[in-house]
Formats: sequence, C-alpha cells, structure tokens
Amino acid sequence: MADNSGYCRRMRLEHPRLTERFGAVRIHELQRVIELDSGSDRAEGSGEHTLTSQIVSSAAIRGIERELAIVIPCMNETRRVIEGVLSGIPHDCLIILVSNSQRAPVDRYEIERQTVEQFCRLAERPALTIHQRDPGLAAAMKAAGLPELLDDDGLVWNGKGEAMLVGMALAALSGRHYVGYVDADNYVPGSVNEYCKAFAAGLHQADSPYAMVRISWHSKPKLKDGRLFFSRRGRTSEVTNQFINRLIAEYSGFGTDVVTTGNAGEHALTLELGMRMRLAGGFAVEPFEYVDLFEQFGGVLESPHPSVMVDGVMVRQIETRNPHFHDDKGESHVHDMRLQALNVLYHSPVCLPPVREAILEFLVTQGALAPGEEPARERTYPPLSTLALDRLLDGLTTEATSFRQIEGRLAAGILMDPPIPRPQPMVS
Amino acid sequence: MADNSGYCRRMRLEHPRLTERFGAVRIHELQRVIELDSGSDRAEGSGEHTLTSQIVSSAAIRGIERELAIVIPCMNETRRVIEGVLSGIPHDCLIILVSNSQRAPVDRYEIERQTVEQFCRLAERPALTIHQRDPGLAAAMKAAGLPELLDDDGLVWNGKGEAMLVGMALAALSGRHYVGYVDADNYVPGSVNEYCKAFAAGLHQADSPYAMVRISWHSKPKLKDGRLFFSRRGRTSEVTNQFINRLIAEYSGFGTDVVTTGNAGEHALTLELGMRMRLAGGFAVEPFEYVDLFEQFGGVLESPHPSVMVDGVMVRQIETRNPHFHDDKGESHVHDMRLQALNVLYHSPVCLPPVREAILEFLVTQGALAPGEEPARERTYPPLSTLALDRLLDGLTTEATSFRQIEGRLAAGILMDPPIPRPQPMVS
Repeated sequence: MADNSGYCRRMRLEHPRLTERFGAVRIHELQRVIELDSGSDRAEGSGEHTLTSQIVSSAAIRGIERELAIVIPCMNETRRVIEGVLSGIPHDCLIILVSNSQRAPVDRYEIERQTVEQFCRLAERPALTIHQRDPGLAAAMKAAGLPELLDDDGLVWNGKGEAMLVGMALAALSGRHYVGYVDADNYVPGSVNEYCKAFAAGLHQADSPYAMVRISWHSKPKLKDGRLFFSRRGRTSEVTNQFINRLIAEYSGFGTDVVTTGNAGEHALTLELGMRMRLAGGFAVEPFEYVDLFEQFGGVLESPHPSVMVDGVMVRQIETRNPHFHDDKGESHVHDMRLQALNVLYHSPVCLPPVREAILEFLVTQGALAPGEEPARERTYPPLSTLALDRLLDGLTTEATSFRQIEGRLAAGILMDPPIPRPQPMVS
Repeated sequence: MADNSGYCRRMRLEHPRLTERFGAVRIHELQRVIELDSGSDRAEGSGEHTLTSQIVSSAAIRGIERELAIVIPCMNETRRVIEGVLSGIPHDCLIILVSNSQRAPVDRYEIERQTVEQFCRLAERPALTIHQRDPGLAAAMKAAGLPELLDDDGLVWNGKGEAMLVGMALAALSGRHYVGYVDADNYVPGSVNEYCKAFAAGLHQADSPYAMVRISWHSKPKLKDGRLFFSRRGRTSEVTNQFINRLIAEYSGFGTDVVTTGNAGEHALTLELGMRMRLAGGFAVEPFEYVDLFEQFGGVLESPHPSVMVDGVMVRQIETRNPHFHDDKGESHVHDMRLQALNVLYHSPVCLPPVREAILEFLVTQGALAPGEEPARERTYPPLSTLALDRLLDGLTTEATSFRQIEGRLAAGILMDPPIPRPQPMVS
C-alpha cells in the first residue's frame, strides 16, 4: 500500500566482514550499527551498499515490522518500566506480553495487562497478553499436542524458555511471519527501539526463509566502586561464546571467534525457522538455539528438513549502539545461566569429545561439578510445528482466562488470522 | 524532492492540555512522547490529531531535520561516548561540535575532531568542529562585532553559554534555520535520537517563526545505596522551575506549574528567534532564555521587535521517554547551576519585588548569600543579530586554526551557504 509521503528512515550497518559456516548454518560476524537513523531513501524502496556500510531502506524495515510480533517475557516488572519498553516498540509490530508475575496477594499480571491496554489505547495499536501459569493455557497446549510443556502441577513449566515458546505460539496464531524477543526489564526505550529496528534490518537482509538475528549489546553498565562502569563483555556471555566457538572449531580445525551472541536475550527469527526449532527450558534457551541449529542443519546429523539444508540458515549478529540497562540479577543468576549453557553444549550429539572434556574441566574448576559428575540435562521441547494451532486457539479463547486480545485501531482480522500452514512433517 | 518510497516514521505526542501566556510568550504545558516510532504516514505528508494524541508526520520531521543544526558542546569526553552521541543524531541534521577540551599535554580536541571525522566518513555526512578557546575564533568574533564575548586574555570566555553562542553563530553561517543543543556526555544514543526527533516534532508544530522546544527528561538515574534509582526530578530543576513559575504568577495572581524545563540542557529553537535573543554565560544560559523572552516579548518592557509581538513566541516542552544518563557532575556543580539561575531571575527587570525577596530569602537560607548581600550579576551577551556574519566567516576560515568543515557525501554548498539575512535592527 504505497504512500506518497516519501520521507523515510533507513538504518545503516557495517558490512559484516566474514561468515562462518557450520553445515547449512551461516553465521555472520558481528555488524555494528553506525547510525540509528540514516536519513531518507534515495529512490523507491532501495537499500544501498557503499564502500563503508550497508543501508537497509525504511521501506524494507517497515515491511518487516508489519509482519513482526515482539514477545515481551515479563516477571514482576514495574509499570513505568513496562510502559517505557512498550513505547520503544515500533508501532507496526504486534506486542505480545507473556507474564509470569505473581497473581497474589497482588495480581501483578492484572496491573501489567491494564498498563498494556492503556498504552494501546493511547497509541492506537493492538496487543496480546497472557499469563504463563494460566491453567487454561496449559490445557490448551496439552490439547494442541504439546503435553511436554506441562509440569507435575499440570501447568506450563516456569522458565524463560517456556515463556518464549508460549510467545512464539501466539505469534504463529497471529499470522505474523517473524517473532522477536525483548526483555521487559529494559530501562531505555531507545534501546528497545534500536533492537526492533535491528531485527527488521537483519531479517530483511536474509537470503533464506530460515533466518535469525541476534543482538549484542554495545555495553552493559555496572556499578563498580560507586560509579557506573560501561562493561563491554558480559561475564556469562564470554564463557558461553567461547565454548560455542570451540564446538565449531573442533570440526574445522581452525579457531574462531565468530559467535558473540550465545546468550542473546534479544533476538528475532522467521517463524519458518522458529516453528522447526526445539527450544530449551529455563536459561538454556538462548545458547541451545545455536546447538539446535547445529544438530538439525549442521550436516553432522541427518537433517529432518532437507529443504532447509538447501536454502541454508542465516544467523546475523548485530551490535547495537545503546547500552543495555536492566535489573541487576546478581551473581547466582549469572552462574545459573552459564551452567545451563554449558549443560546443553555438553550433552549435544554434535559436541565432540575434546570439547566435552574441556567443558567438564571448566565446570569442575569452577566448583560447579564434582569430579566424575555429569552435567545436568536441561529440558528441551519438540518444535511448535507439532502443535495443532486451531486447537490451541480454541483452548485459549475458551479456557485461558488470562488471555487478552487488545484491539487497536486496525481492522479486525489483524489478530487471529487463519493460522499459518503447518510446516512440512518432521521426516520428508 | 518527492520519493515514492512512502514508508515513514511518525512521532506521537500527548495533546498539551494548557498554555500559559506571558505577553506574547506562549508556554505549552509538558507533552509526553507516547511512541518513539509511530508507524507510517497514512496520506501525503499528513499529521493527525486523534482524541488521544497528536501525530507529527515523518515528512514533517524530516523537513525540519534537513534544516536543523545540532550543536554539541563538549568538554573532555571520551571517544566512545562522543561516537555514541553522534550515532544518535538523525542523518539529515548538521553536526556542530564546539569543544572546550584540553589542548595539552594531550590534545583532546584533536582526538574529538578525528572521532567526528571518522564517523562522518562512515556515515557519509558533514560536520563542523571548533575549539572555544581558539584565538582565531576570538579574533573573528571581535572583528564581526561581538567583543563582549572575549575575556581579559582576549579569548572567548569559558562557559557553556558561550559554547552555545558559538554554536549558534556557526549554525547561522551554515544557512540552516533551526539550531538544537545536545550535551556530549550522554551515554544513551537512543535518547539523543529521541531529543532530536522531539525537537523536529515540536518545531514543526510551531505556529510562529519564533519558536523553541525544551526537553524534560523522563528520569535521571542516580546511584543510591549501591543501586540505580530512576529519579524523576532533578534537584536544580525543581528550584529553578519553581522560581520561574513564581515570576510568572506574580503578574497573573494565579499560581502556575507550567514551566518544567528551566534548566533544559537539551533544547532547540528557530534561528529567527535565536538570533534576536541575548544569551547568558556559564550555566545561567538555560534559565536566562526564559528571562530574556519575558523581557523582550513579555509585554512588560517595550519590545525591540514589534513584529515578534504580533506573531508571538511559542515555547513547547516535551518529556521524552528515555532516561538521561550522563556524567555525575557532583554537588557543587548542581549548586552553581542553581545559584546562577537565581541570579539571573533576581536581576531581571521583569522580576517583581516580592519574587526578588523570595529569592533572597532562599539564597540566604541555603547559605549561598550573606544577609544583606546582593546576588551576583551573570554575564549576558548581545543578540547574534549584531554579528556581521560575513566577517565572522572570513575570520574563521583565515585565522581559526581549530575550525574544520568536514565534507559529507552531500554536494558542496550545504555548508557555508550565504549567511541568512540579518534580522530587523534592534529598534524598528
């Protein structure tokens, strides 16, 4: 639907200098954002490549945003901060809030829902909200064919990976083609905006229907000696990235540093890819994305999706300009994240013995494992392609009392479009 | 020059609920930004007003940006931070860096200049840079008719107001119609981007050639008990705003809270207005802008510009979403700022005796004044309309060794357009 307004905003990125391949998985080296706002398109919807940079046209960015759902996993975050995050999400993206906040003594989810609703009313845009521990959601998931998602209490397991999975299922139901994740505890709306634009720019540049964009933060401010210190390297990330790179290097015989986004909280992907991927529970979810890609499409094990092998899987890593300010979750949180990351690497069938040994050694040295002990196995879930989306929708609308479809100014039909066609069966 | 790309970014603001008048000066109540990025224009270049909000079209925002120079006063800031600030400034704005960084033992200005140059090369855009204490700059200013700007050493006075004045003069030379100010010590490029967009949106909405937009920060993070606390009210601002509002209220007899941007570091204005205004030196510069507007256009004293009285002066105040992270300049800095603000209010001929007494009382109670002592007079400068811009340009290009015109991809002629016509003489 063309306008004649003609004044648009492009995003300018560095050229990625090298690409590492692991079977059909192509991982681009980190690209920095040069300008948040790179002026207007010169000609009809054109991007540009110059000697110094790539420009993704605003037309292209908007094209993606209209098909992009942004999932915000949220847990006991303040109203103000949530509102800030919402204000940073580009208008054309669909907001999907997945909450695991307390329901009693204060129903914090209800406050969150109202916050989203108020914002959407002012901003004239739609959203979906749901609570992760809603019994109706669990029942709907079970009926739709994903009983593995339920714990011993018959509710969806707690955990970030599980929240992301629920979010992706809702994105699939909405009919949008891309899903992105932004954490709710982000104090800088401008960075939220930048992540979403980077998602769109990176996804637009995809040369395959199976694509992912992972964000690396420019810096993460930390309190040190009573001042803010803008740390460039997260503690968890360093270790996770190191071992993912080692896993890759063990095959090629060449050391690599290509992966810098092993623990990327903020990332986006095409649903064509996402619905075929297995997700891990808890904090293992983000590094396990790499592991699952290597297992399914790395050419080491037989791929369940030969068509994907032909097109390949594109992974872009984009370093944003804004610093990432979020809640300081503390040492034990970091420890857990690192541990879970290494657990999933260790147990992967594509992880070769020398790397396994290195992981064991590291964990023992860190005191996280007793000598001779095996790392724990993290929970992983089947791909969402196994879900019967029509039954999921039924269950949600009839039983999930926390589920809300917030209308925007847009015509009805934006939400709950006919579900996208189910991807090819696991074995073709 | 119309493109057919047609996919644009609008900014959505709250409706301002009330407007306070002081003679010909119309001050709008604070408007919040609702969405940073409000989707695309619906029809050719249209803005929209809805029940809940105002939308400024992207076409309009871009129209302003192309005519907007952004002055960055800079003092001993790190490369990384400067680069971040630059990356947040919309591509179409002209960057003007005014530095008062040390030249020895390390020539920090040279590092800053190189940083700007590298960025401009990557981003393909132009910039101007200059050092405030350049003897050539001082000579040029003197030759152009502003000897008041020089201190006893024959150099431009140190001080933020002076840096802003130099920046405005360069903006006038560039031929651009608007000038905005963004501090260099801003750690969040997304907030820089938001300020500039808010400048453009606010200036577009101006119903007079004489217009100003002042930014109020959403919050300012502070370290408190080892954690980040997002403070809503700056300590200096509270006091300054309080007394500006009192000054206004003394005339109307009605208390008011309308002014919330007395110390707005980030603000923008039309050069038609700026060239007619007197600027104060040091930190008094921002509150004195209000004072000067009240003196020249408040209808209390005879106005030197009857034409401005007819059109009126529009002041918009916009509260941005992003928090403002910058260097913690410490208690004494805040103290100085507050003191200077109150000094200029006190000495203004439009400040009525009861308000003067209240100011005195406050300063004595704070221990900033001995009883019976008079507040200091701050330096103020004549309006830049008194400058002979052609002589300024000559002086800069021949004598100011720190002055740099950094070319971008744009055609020559973007910089150093014929200076804008000199405004009407002081007394018409």
